[in-house]
Amino acid sequence: MSLASGRTYLAIPGPSVMPDAVLQAMHQPAPNIYEGDLVKMVDGIIPDLRKVARTDGHVAIYICNGHGAWEAVLSNTVGAGEKVLVLATGRFGHGWADMADGLGIELEVINFGTKAPVDANRVLEALAADTEKKIKAVLMVHVDTSSSVRSEVPPVRAAIDAADHPALLMVDCIASMGCDRYEMDAWGADVTITASQKGLMTPPGIAFAFFNDRAAEVRKAMPRVSRYWDWTERANPEMFYQYFGGTAPTHHLFALRKALDIIHDEGMENIWKRHATLAKAVWTAVDVWGSGGPMTMNIADPANRSHAVTALRLGFPHGERLRTWCAENAGVTLGIGLGMSEEGDPKGHGFFRFGHMGHVNAHMILGLLGVVEAGLKALDIPHNAGGVGAAAEFIAQATLPAS
Amino acid sequence: MSLASGRTYLAIPGPSVMPDAVLQAMHQPAPNIYEGDLVKMVDGIIPDLRKVARTDGHVAIYICNGHGAWEAVLSNTVGAGEKVLVLATGRFGHGWADMADGLGIELEVINFGTKAPVDANRVLEALAADTEKKIKAVLMVHVDTSSSVRSEVPPVRAAIDAADHPALLMVDCIASMGCDRYEMDAWGADVTITASQKGLMTPPGIAFAFFNDRAAEVRKAMPRVSRYWDWTERANPEMFYQYFGGTAPTHHLFALRKALDIIHDEGMENIWKRHATLAKAVWTAVDVWGSGGPMTMNIADPANRSHAVTALRLGFPHGERLRTWCAENAGVTLGIGLGMSEEGDPKGHGFFRFGHMGHVNAHMILGLLGVVEAGLKALDIPHNAGGVGAAAEFIAQATLPAS
Amino acid sequence: MSLASGRTYLAIPGPSVMPDAVLQAMHQPAPNIYEGDLVKMVDGIIPDLRKVARTDGHVAIYICNGHGAWEAVLSNTVGAGEKVLVLATGRFGHGWADMADGLGIELEVINFGTKAPVDANRVLEALAADTEKKIKAVLMVHVDTSSSVRSEVPPVRAAIDAADHPALLMVDCIASMGCDRYEMDAWGADVTITASQKGLMTPPGIAFAFFNDRAAEVRKAMPRVSRYWDWTERANPEMFYQYFGGTAPTHHLFALRKALDIIHDEGMENIWKRHATLAKAVWTAVDVWGSGGPMTMNIADPANRSHAVTALRLGFPHGERLRTWCAENAGVTLGIGLGMSEEGDPKGHGFFRFGHMGHVNAHMILGLLGVVEAGLKALDIPHNAGGVGAAAEFIAQATLPAS
Amino acid sequence: MSLASGRTYLAIPGPSVMPDAVLQAMHQPAPNIYEGDLVKMVDGIIPDLRKVARTDGHVAIYICNGHGAWEAVLSNTVGAGEKVLVLATGRFGHGWADMADGLGIELEVINFGTKAPVDANRVLEALAADTEKKIKAVLMVHVDTSSSVRSEVPPVRAAIDAADHPALLMVDCIASMGCDRYEMDAWGADVTITASQKGLMTPPGIAFAFFNDRAAEVRKAMPRVSRYWDWTERANPEMFYQYFGGTAPTHHLFALRKALDIIHDEGMENIWKRHATLAKAVWTAVDVWGSGGPMTMNIADPANRSHAVTALRLGFPHGERLRTWCAENAGVTLGIGLGMSEEGDPKGHGFFRFGHMGHVNAHMILGLLGVVEAGLKALDIPHNAGGVGAAAEFIAQATLPAS
Repeated sequence: MSLASGRTYLAIPGPSVMPDAVLQAMHQPAPNIYEGDLVKMVDGIIPDLRKVARTDGHVAIYICNGHGAWEAVLSNTVGAGEKVLVLATGRFGHGWADMADGLGIELEVINFGTKAPVDANRVLEALAADTEKKIKAVLMVHVDTSSSVRSEVPPVRAAIDAADHPALLMVDCIASMGCDRYEMDAWGADVTITASQKGLMTPPGIAFAFFNDRAAEVRKAMPRVSRYWDWTERANPEMFYQYFGGTAPTHHLFALRKALDIIHDEGMENIWKRHATLAKAVWTAVDVWGSGGPMTMNIADPANRSHAVTALRLGFPHGERLRTWCAENAGVTLGIGLGMSEEGDPKGHGFFRFGHMGHVNAHMILGLLGVVEAGLKALDIPHNAGGVGAAAEFIAQATLPAS
Repeated sequence: MSLASGRTYLAIPGPSVMPDAVLQAMHQPAPNIYEGDLVKMVDGIIPDLRKVARTDGHVAIYICNGHGAWEAVLSNTVGAGEKVLVLATGRFGHGWADMADGLGIELEVINFGTKAPVDANRVLEALAADTEKKIKAVLMVHVDTSSSVRSEVPPVRAAIDAADHPALLMVDCIASMGCDRYEMDAWGADVTITASQKGLMTPPGIAFAFFNDRAAEVRKAMPRVSRYWDWTERANPEMFYQYFGGTAPTHHLFALRKALDIIHDEGMENIWKRHATLAKAVWTAVDVWGSGGPMTMNIADPANRSHAVTALRLGFPHGERLRTWCAENAGVTLGIGLGMSEEGDPKGHGFFRFGHMGHVNAHMILGLLGVVEAGLKALDIPHNAGGVGAAAEFIAQATLPAS
Repeated sequence: MSLASGRTYLAIPGPSVMPDAVLQAMHQPAPNIYEGDLVKMVDGIIPDLRKVARTDGHVAIYICNGHGAWEAVLSNTVGAGEKVLVLATGRFGHGWADMADGLGIELEVINFGTKAPVDANRVLEALAADTEKKIKAVLMVHVDTSSSVRSEVPPVRAAIDAADHPALLMVDCIASMGCDRYEMDAWGADVTITASQKGLMTPPGIAFAFFNDRAAEVRKAMPRVSRYWDWTERANPEMFYQYFGGTAPTHHLFALRKALDIIHDEGMENIWKRHATLAKAVWTAVDVWGSGGPMTMNIADPANRSHAVTALRLGFPHGERLRTWCAENAGVTLGIGLGMSEEGDPKGHGFFRFGHMGHVNAHMILGLLGVVEAGLKALDIPHNAGGVGAAAEFIAQATLPAS
Repeated sequence: MSLASGRTYLAIPGPSVMPDAVLQAMHQPAPNIYEGDLVKMVDGIIPDLRKVARTDGHVAIYICNGHGAWEAVLSNTVGAGEKVLVLATGRFGHGWADMADGLGIELEVINFGTKAPVDANRVLEALAADTEKKIKAVLMVHVDTSSSVRSEVPPVRAAIDAADHPALLMVDCIASMGCDRYEMDAWGADVTITASQKGLMTPPGIAFAFFNDRAAEVRKAMPRVSRYWDWTERANPEMFYQYFGGTAPTHHLFALRKALDIIHDEGMENIWKRHATLAKAVWTAVDVWGSGGPMTMNIADPANRSHAVTALRLGFPHGERLRTWCAENAGVTLGIGLGMSEEGDPKGHGFFRFGHMGHVNAHMILGLLGVVEAGLKALDIPHNAGGVGAAAEFIAQATLPAS
């Protein structure tokens, strides 16, 4: 018997659940793109985006997905034949490297595997070894959605400074923005990218680059930048269409405007606390389950785990069985174990992920954990019961005023 | 700290959560109400409504709420000065009686209190005592939303038959239709009413009367029936507007059409099983919590509990505190304790209700139970922990194939 | 070849075209009906409704269509066996009379046919003849949607006063409210009804009664009023549900709130001027066409024509041919000729109507007229060309500041 | 007095009016992007896109606007230092050239001004002069939205063939696709681009490249192509995300699916006829108005005019006055005169455009023309009246079966 008929919960690590009001905001006729309300609306979006990234820097909006944002910021700062240092902590670090390769950029990749964050000492070593200062940018992924590892940005900044190296620090915050704390200016990132479909609670299709004056200077020194990716006019348009390098993404802008209203009504600090608490509730449940069976979190140290997504291993083929059970019986879609595999499990069917990013509350998370606990039991996968109860208790404590 | 920002869950006993596709279906321009697609659509709605009520009888659609449906069917069958026997098992039985009183109908009320279902023996006694056969109809509420008690219909039918009494059996299925099993023809109801906003997953604003040929004969013998409430043309229209006694409720019909599609795609038997299972999951959790504290279900015997709603007592003022906590901290709205009060609690702040009707799945219910467990803990209300875990285990067992 | 594929225009006299923002406002999840935002919202709706009807009186909201509103106000004021004077100027006057008949009310009908407004002299005669003051209410239809005639209210008030008669003056403004000027208090109406789906730009399904203290006194003297129709608690609720005599029509209220915002942003005087101008543009075109062929307006004297709807005769079977042509070729749905027929045309296929009520602007009306002009030509129905051009010129003049 | 309050008509040359059903289709929760319904849906979109472009070739979908599509196809086929021949017939030809310049491509531009189509003889001359075959591609804009000129594709193909030149023929159909007849394969285009927001009736944000095997071969020979723009995997994906080079544009895909349903329900031949007829209706009106005043169409020869957009000159400052009048008084937004200016009118306030692309029917166009005729009169701009009437007569004739 299926108990799935109801409002389903998409617990994948993006696209994330959108507020009803965001979808509602998109449901309106095409607007004039040359003058009027739309033009005024976008002028207000820019400072609100800055507040999300904690920066006073420049903002460029791109019609593209996250992969496009990777290419966009590289196109503005690193030419063919120049070099980048890529800090890979999962599939997406390698993806960004691949995008750089497509632009003819020379790669130096430090691979931290899929279970550990960036080690800033190794960054320092690599930069120190670059005596000719050929490395033009250091690319790091704040939260790698595949491994769910979160790396600290300030130590990398410190390493660059310690090496007295001119490389730009470029940070991919696609999975983390609006979920995990991120402070672009305070932490010393020169370039930050993100996309619409995770913590920003807007459908996929637009992405953002934030950059500081140092990065802007690097751009100015570039001999040539593709017109579509050039951030110069996008960040400082004389005419409205220049924001978007052509026709505006009208309905995404309607959605984004509403999402930013919701975000700033709650407040960034509150949003970060909410995500931290809900993530810890998830981990609490997994710790209980895992104490009696094979379930483990991919990232052992809680300090290195993202608050937006949790990658797990359950062993072949239990990850896939659990995902299927949750969807067919309980109305929950879990994320696949992206980029994971091991001996005997070439397709990664022993792995899965919980997305808990963006528009997510205690009800949704406790429902998710309750469903997983039911699924483990129904599928006879070894575990200790009590995970969802422990998570509920954790949440109870978290909501109390600090004593 | 609040963890409420996310998709909120309205767990009140109606209006219930609507499928996104139902809301989407309502979002279209005004249609022609004289010819074309709308006219064809309504012709298909009628047989699909019959399948929900398990009847081959007549169907009348009314633009009104449930209270209007009470008045509608009385207006067709019982005149001023005539008499009805009302079987009251909560606030709504008395409400229907009050509606009859407004029509000048004489009342005989058997009050079963708020904790027990109809006792058919007492119905038999009352009818046997009515030697002049003055009672024109027996009114019963299948599920009283306030007390969450469910009364069996067949024993009441049997009592009427045993008394050889001509009274019509009229059943209010507003809370139960599409949630608790109901078989109008097989169970011998003459008239059944329901409304759109619970198991039918459509916004409040339209209601339905089903009636058999016996009831139609009673109508024909009435000296006069209000044109608005007269079901004759509504159930057998020559022209489209007669379905609705005037202008069609266009957007409710769009919603209803989609809701009926969803209902019959799942199938009535599957829907009833789903509600039974989810209700029992709720009770399982409450049993655990109540074993260590004051929480009790209003209806002691599970056989008498509705699968659509559960009324509870937590004691003053804990019901209200819990309701507030769930809304402010976790994104869940619980139902108030309608019509309940006790010494020291004139406003019923010790009572509350869970709605679990209509578009509801394992994720929503386990999330609800997880939130309540967290709330009990955060508010330091005595209870045994483990309720949501026990419910998850119950659900796991329920989804397994019968051995 | 069809040129219909595009945004179609429903030019029937109700339901009318709704603003996109109204439909958008309806697209949201079910709200709590016991407390919170919905409750506050309705409190603000009441004064905004009063401003539309130009009254300081009482307001009752009913979940029903316009036919229900007829029954509602009669139920509050006129008992079975009592008498009303009905002033019929088309199908809807007779419809209201029929509704009264269903309540056992005695009827005196003055039939002004389908081409003329109420003649207040005849009202005075009838009231003067009622020396026993048996007539409890005078029922008039401000604009009869079928004939498109508009009758003046103040002369009827004057006639009642001149006859020194206690009868209530009850006015049906279903078609006219928010289109033709109407001032309930200044004009001396005691009771006014309207419905949601015309000038109020909300889907059909709710209706409204406005009544003054005199009418309230009459209600109080009634021996019994049906609970559903009783306006007492609806107009002066202690608890929220009493506004609606049960469950609130949640999604209609969302729509109505937005529609009232749009209405009062424009302003009643501006709305009335807009409708007057657009109606005259329609008549200007018809005058041109009719000068060379059979097209005539049902109401000869412009002073007696509604600004919300125009009924026309084109002769059998041209009305129906034109309606079909416009729908199939040009994306416009014209209204049928409701209640009209003549020798050789029992189904009224020589008649049709233009709806121009509510959310309607110069573009929509000139498009309508252009399409009709094209249809007359394509169907080879005799007419003088130049109707739409003349209407455009009329509109040009109307928009100029008065010299 | 304003007559603008009603459903407004956005008559700009893109984004175009969208069907209500397309907006409705976008209003749904985020889907899973790894498996399930979305994946199946996209597989069906590809052949339906091919049918719109009349090609059996390859299809790549890009998340970007039209400017992005320009860069995309250049990136796949022309390297830095290589050369293209650009045939400019308005602002957008120069825009494409500018995009090529940004990629380091050498430009040869034949400027045909803003009032004439491409002259294939000059193309032949240019190619014949390229004895070293350095020109890698000929870029032409089928309909230049700024000038509204339409150039014939087959003569350009013939010129390339006559010169026995290997250059690819790349055609920008952003404004014309789904409006003006276009037959990619029959006409010999090697690459065709378009975007979502005009004839495809979907919000701006995705664009499309169609290419044949010859173009695919050119791509394969490129030493390096940017990963984001590389069409190889997009047109032949092994995994779903490769269609989009990353995260799928979920809500645009929902919209596009519905738009393609609407398009193919009507049929390409019918769509092209509808646009041709409505465009000619517009020209008929303009011819009348212009016969008595300054209004002229930018493109003198009807054979060279697009069926999707009409650019006009009214003389300073009448274009801007008319645009303002239509918006403020009548609910119609006209397009600005993009890229137009003349002595005494540096901002092009004497110019404007009618968009009549995509979801547009006789009602919308006749309303547009009626409004413009009213505006000319109200503003006292010299013109002969009767334009809208003449257009209505033209439409009447066009809908008749051919004799």
